[in-house]
Parts: sequence; C-alpha cells; structure tokens
Amino acid sequence: MENPVLVEVTRGQLVESSHRGAFALIDGDGKTIASAGDVDRPVFPRSAVKLLQAIPLIETGAAARFGLDDKDLSLACASHSGEPEHVRRAAAMLAKAGLDMEALECGAHWPGEADVSRDMARRGETPCQLHNNCSGKHAGFLLTAAHRGEEAAGYSGPNHPVQVRAKAVIEDLIGRSLNVDVCGTDGCSIPTYAAPLRDFALAFARLASGRGVEPQRAEAGQALMRACMAEPFEMSGTGRACLKLMQAAPGKIFAKTGAEGVFCGALPDLGLGFALKIDDGATRASEALAAAVIAAALKKQDASLAETFAAMARKDLRNWRGTRTGEIRVTLPKD
Amino acid sequence: MENPVLVEVTRGQLVESSHRGAFALIDGDGKTIASAGDVDRPVFPRSAVKLLQAIPLIETGAAARFGLDDKDLSLACASHSGEPEHVRRAAAMLAKAGLDMEALECGAHWPGEADVSRDMARRGETPCQLHNNCSGKHAGFLLTAAHRGEEAAGYSGPNHPVQVRAKAVIEDLIGRSLNVDVCGTDGCSIPTYAAPLRDFALAFARLASGRGVEPQRAEAGQALMRACMAEPFEMSGTGRACLKLMQAAPGKIFAKTGAEGVFCGALPDLGLGFALKIDDGATRASEALAAAVIAAALKKQDASLAETFAAMARKDLRNWRGTRTGEIRVTLPKD
Repeated sequence: MENPVLVEVTRGQLVESSHRGAFALIDGDGKTIASAGDVDRPVFPRSAVKLLQAIPLIETGAAARFGLDDKDLSLACASHSGEPEHVRRAAAMLAKAGLDMEALECGAHWPGEADVSRDMARRGETPCQLHNNCSGKHAGFLLTAAHRGEEAAGYSGPNHPVQVRAKAVIEDLIGRSLNVDVCGTDGCSIPTYAAPLRDFALAFARLASGRGVEPQRAEAGQALMRACMAEPFEMSGTGRACLKLMQAAPGKIFAKTGAEGVFCGALPDLGLGFALKIDDGATRASEALAAAVIAAALKKQDASLAETFAAMARKDLRNWRGTRTGEIRVTLPKD
Repeated sequence: MENPVLVEVTRGQLVESSHRGAFALIDGDGKTIASAGDVDRPVFPRSAVKLLQAIPLIETGAAARFGLDDKDLSLACASHSGEPEHVRRAAAMLAKAGLDMEALECGAHWPGEADVSRDMARRGETPCQLHNNCSGKHAGFLLTAAHRGEEAAGYSGPNHPVQVRAKAVIEDLIGRSLNVDVCGTDGCSIPTYAAPLRDFALAFARLASGRGVEPQRAEAGQALMRACMAEPFEMSGTGRACLKLMQAAPGKIFAKTGAEGVFCGALPDLGLGFALKIDDGATRASEALAAAVIAAALKKQDASLAETFAAMARKDLRNWRGTRTGEIRVTLPKD
C-alpha cells in the first residue's frame, strides 16, 4: 500500500514531478487530529529530533552549570547553516568546558547553502568540524559529559552515557523501546533510531501539552522549544525553511527539519505535535508539507494564521530568467 | 496505479527513502526490450533531449559552415558544469558567427557543482550567461539561426524557426504531434514538450539503428552521439554521472541526464534507445537507474560489460567521517 502523493511540482499545465509521504498531527493524549499515509512504518527522524536529544542538557543541570542562554540552547537543537555566528557560538559553547573543536566527533563538511559556502571560499576559508551543521548539538553533548564527569572521547558512540541518555528520553516520550534492529548511524556519527511518525508526533505533543510526561521533562522540552522559537536563526540560518516557519508566528510554532525529507514540530499553545516524512527524502517537499500541516493544525483556532501557513505551502517556480514555469504545491488527501 | 519503487536508500538495516519511477528500453522497430512503470504518461524530457534539439545544427549545414568539431558538437548537446573550458568553448562557438554572450537568452546561474561554484568565488568571478549549463545548446541555436539568416533575437521563443525546427525533429522521431497542452517553459527559457517515455526511447532507438527515420536524419543523430561519446567532458563536466557512464564503455553508450530525474540514451551498436523518469525528480535515483537500464540492455550481448554498469547502479553511502551508513541501490521489478 503506497503513501499518497502529498506534494506536486508543475510545469505548464502538467504535473512534472510528485512526492509521496505521510504525516501525523497528534494531541498530548495520543489522539490523531489529522494524518495521511502510513504513520506506523519506522522512519529515521534524523535531525528533526535534536530537541529531544538535547533534553539531557537541561535535565542533568549542564545548561545551568555552564550558563547557556536561549541562543546556546537553540544552537544545541540546530541543523545550522555554518554561518560565522553559528561557528563562533559553537566554539564559545565548547570553551565553557575548556574544550575546543578537537573534541568534536561530527566530522567536517562545507556549508550546505551555496551562498554561505561561496562566502567562505571567497574569504579563503575551509570548513572545520565547527561548520558541521550538528556542531551545536555535539557541543551540547560534550557539555553534558563534562558536567557529569564523563570521558569526552567516544561521546558519539551508542554506548556512551550521552547517547544512552538521549535514547532513553526518546523511548520515554514515544513509549517504545528502540532496539538495534532499528538503529542506524547518522551523518554526524551518532546513532539514530527509526520509529513510527505517529510516535514522534506524540513525543512532541507530550512535551508541548505536559500530558503523559514527567513535569520536569515537559519543562525541559518546553524550555528548549521556547529558546528555539525565540532564537530560530541559531537553530537554522539565513533563508532557511525552519526560520521562515517560526518567524511567521513567533512563539507559536516549533518546527525542525531532518535529512531525507523529515520534519517534526509542535504548536505549544495547542498542545499538538506533528511529524512528517517524504518517501523520497526531498527537502523541497518536506518544507511545503510542514507549512500545510501547521495550517491544518491552526485551522479551527486561528483561520487567519492558518491561511498564512497555507500560503507557504505553495510557491511559484521560476527559471533562470525569472519567468514563472510552474509551482510546487501540497495536495492533501480529502478527509 | 502507481509506479514501482526502482531505487532505495538504506540506513542500517532499513530502507530510509525510496524513489518510484519508470523506464523504457526500446529497439528501432518500437519493440520493448525491458520496461517498468507507466511509460505512456507524458513526461517533460528536459535536457535529456538536447541531442534531438541539436539535429538541425547538423541538418541545416550550420555545423559544417562554422567548422564545428566534436567538442563543439558535444557542447551543443550539453548540460555542462560551467567549468572554465565549457565557458571558453561556448564563447568561441558564438564568436564563429560574430556573436557574444549578449545574444544568449538562457539566463545566468552559478554552477550547480559546489566545488566549481566555490572555485569561481575564490577567483572573484560571478557567473554570466556563458556559465549557464545550456549555453552550448543555445550557442548551437544561434549558429543555426545565423547560418539560415534568421534574426537572432527571440531564438528561444516557441514560434522562432529555431524552436520550430527542434520541435519538428522530435515530432518526427516520436511519430506524434506535440501540442500546446503539453508545452512548458524550460529552465533556460526554450519550450519543452512532454511525451511518453516510450516515445523518447523510440526516438533514440531510431537514430541509433537507422530504422524508421530518414537516412540523413539518422546520420545527423549518430554524428552527434559519436561526438558526445568521444568528448563526454564537454557534454557534462568533472565527476558528472554522464561522464562516468560514457567513459565506462567508450563509444558504446550515449547517456544524457535531464532535470527532474530524467535520462535518455542509446546503445548505438545494439540499435537500442532508453528513457527513464524518477517520479520525484531526484538525480541520485535517475543516475543509479540509468546504470541499471544500461546493464539490462547489455546483459545478453556482453555480460561482463553489463556487470560494470550493474556495479554503478549501487553505491555505498558514507557520513561526514567516512563511516558507511548504508547504500543506494536499484531494485528493478522481477520480470
């Protein structure tokens, strides 16, 4: 049974390409508000669950110990663009525990945004591990290990207390064990565990609503969401989809992208969580769908704001001379 | 009825993402040698039919008039990477008719390959229309117009003789009229017409085999294929998939990528043509599938060479530290 087409790309009068996928919009009691496709098939959430992996940073007391502010917490949940401010802040976070980039185990890569990458080239720079989009998350991991007196080396491995804590948080929030058969290695070398979209949506709904979760864990999750919503640039970067989504309704939307066409997020005021996956992994489709799912979540309570996000789910496509050639649009199945 | 999954991307033991699509492998009489999915649905071929659009460059006598060599002809069929040699040659081709880049109507864009783009940034350069991946094709269009005494301005428009000739060649080779309802505007501003994959495969099979096509047209198509196979760098660029596919069996494989997950090609010795489309437009999938389709075409005649291409249809995927995280692989439906 295949997932429905959720995003179409047109040229002229025809659909040129299409993207299938699934999404779940869940409340804190686990009730499905809206969904499409197979939300029970295991999906690697990738970076979309960085906030969940950062909860130990708060719960262990490391964030307070090292005086992390909202921008630091946002970076700890980030897939940042490797712009100078991201790099500076990641280095500064490591320095709070007397560490430098040598401690990182995420690997180095050129910034994914072409203009950021060209700017670095113009300045004669080459990327180091601080430019890795996950460097803030890894800085958070290292600060937690330092606070707990744990050895820094090997913090990215599945058996290190840092990763064991992150995995335990996710298992608690989804109410399911994550076994080795659903374990993969992420781009930044930490373990990543596949689980149903329904589960990830529930995890974020529980944090947002405070239902089905220990109060101190809900507070930690909400503190991280507030930090990301207050400082979305640190979590993403110039022109990024997460930035645009969160800036469209400041303080109301938490939305985080993950590689291979994933998004997770929450509407804290409404106590709702969502998770989505584009089957083929396309970011252009996951970004459009995220806007549409947020619009669906807002429809009853705030029709005007819902319209703002519905408009972000459709975009004109233009060629190299600026001529409109078609559009990308979300096509949700009729209820 | 949905297209089958033809390409899978794995992480750990799971399939993380998957790509659906279709392909047709056809002989010069129109007989299907192999296929999968819906090969009758209209598909925009995009750059995959540049060779067909370049046939008038030969047939009108323009190529001979301006003394175009194989590298020039290859560039006239190219989606090149905008490397210095591509840019230099496109300018040189225009100069043969006393034209410069001001005559181009393709628009300018940064090179799509990140390292080529960074190299330009390091040199303090910004792209002009010569860097546009289609500039060689457009140079060919302008040379044809110049040879025919046609006005250069507006050569990219659907009613200009240049585009009318290109459309007529495609209609002749697929045996079907291309109407305005299947017309879109391409990235480089020329018209692009959607037709079934089966038709595009047949077009290339006819050129390769000489069957069902006027001899002088077959010769023109074969001359262009020989030029591209002899000089694949001009048609593509450093590290590009088309380069690798054609260098794996010099003179035996013509393969051309098109935007939104398309490939067209031919095996001239075997008189076969192929066309494929990945539903979601992903290039990582179209490149893997192209290798698999070529392997399928070679299986009977040359098992060893077929194995070379089958190996190119699978690739280990590694993370930022070089750790293998999974693979991308083609999964053709069982016959």
